[in-house]
Amino acid sequence: MKLVIGDKNLSSWSMRPWVLLRHFGLAFDEMLIRLDQPDTKAKILDVTPSGKVPCLITDNGHAVWESLAIMETIAENHPQHAMWPRDAAARALARSISAEMHGGFADLRQNMPMQIDMHAPGLGATPATLFDIARIDAMWNDCLARSGGPFLFGEFGIADAMYAPVVMRFNSYEPALSEGSRAYARRVTALPAVAAWIDDARKEAAR
Amino acid sequence: MKLVIGDKNLSSWSMRPWVLLRHFGLAFDEMLIRLDQPDTKAKILDVTPSGKVPCLITDNGHAVWESLAIMETIAENHPQHAMWPRDAAARALARSISAEMHGGFADLRQNMPMQIDMHAPGLGATPATLFDIARIDAMWNDCLARSGGPFLFGEFGIADAMYAPVVMRFNSYEPALSEGSRAYARRVTALPAVAAWIDDARKEAAR
Repeated sequence: MKLVIGDKNLSSWSMRPWVLLRHFGLAFDEMLIRLDQPDTKAKILDVTPSGKVPCLITDNGHAVWESLAIMETIAENHPQHAMWPRDAAARALARSISAEMHGGFADLRQNMPMQIDMHAPGLGATPATLFDIARIDAMWNDCLARSGGPFLFGEFGIADAMYAPVVMRFNSYEPALSEGSRAYARRVTALPAVAAWIDDARKEAAR
Repeated sequence: MKLVIGDKNLSSWSMRPWVLLRHFGLAFDEMLIRLDQPDTKAKILDVTPSGKVPCLITDNGHAVWESLAIMETIAENHPQHAMWPRDAAARALARSISAEMHGGFADLRQNMPMQIDMHAPGLGATPATLFDIARIDAMWNDCLARSGGPFLFGEFGIADAMYAPVVMRFNSYEPALSEGSRAYARRVTALPAVAAWIDDARKEAAR
């Protein structure tokens, strides 16, 4: 399979399925389309009618787009890996918070955009953004308390991949967080698949 | 199970799982929380930490929120019903366009809000909104051509439920659409489960 992504420093949506595939050791080709170039839109439309990255091209040549649909499809195709929690109630909760990220937190996304090489504590901390962050902080602590950690539902999975770009934002803008969320963010940052993405992003930004 | 929803005239997100449950004949209790009231937020937070409707309360008392997560959970719990297409490639496409609706079309949602008792042809037709509509029009025609119709993937399912509130908007604001999309919108509008929601919404709005 092939994963079409945007710049690693900037494309938060691309990071999610990339980290998932990498963490579970699934082989894939990577096709990186640089964002904000004159031909970016045309290049993306060549692979997906949605005009957005990421996009997964399956071995059968089908395009699957939107990070959540890509990860549902990957999970379904690899049932040997617990990408969603095995427990039905935990899985429903994992899907709820993953969809909440997919469709929500507009202020956080607007005011604290992912830019991995950025370090600007305090930037973007509007009241509405801090409201989003408080919800995420409470959610993370609730999930960690239920599962016992170290990740939201025990082992690293799709829900963690959905929030990995939020961890990147927190690393850049350093909003106040509970100790539980700070520790979780450190664990996500240190995960080898996430560290590999960060390393690529820094090299890309330095070029 | 119990489905917590907002006003039927206004809550596009609530319409999606309600129509799905009704279409497939699954029994559920309905709890309607009126939106835009002084106690709306408190009432919703009583049932879900996300603070948003819809929310499904399972028979085990677990809250599941976000329309897409609710419908994935319902589909998983009722495998005898083809809520997602049975074919894997079609299912991946159905999930892609459902997630595209879940996270996208911000201009359409902003400028042509669902209000079922509204009839205002031409209102909200900004260039960005028309761009969203052109994408949806092309997507519908592509899916109908692949499946042969009458719904996006043959029989009515989750992807159609995701776009049912878009049909409501098109009925209200009447943007220019291809004949294929107009015919699809008529079929969605006439579906008994959708007609039942519309009927409830009109009665609600008239009160």
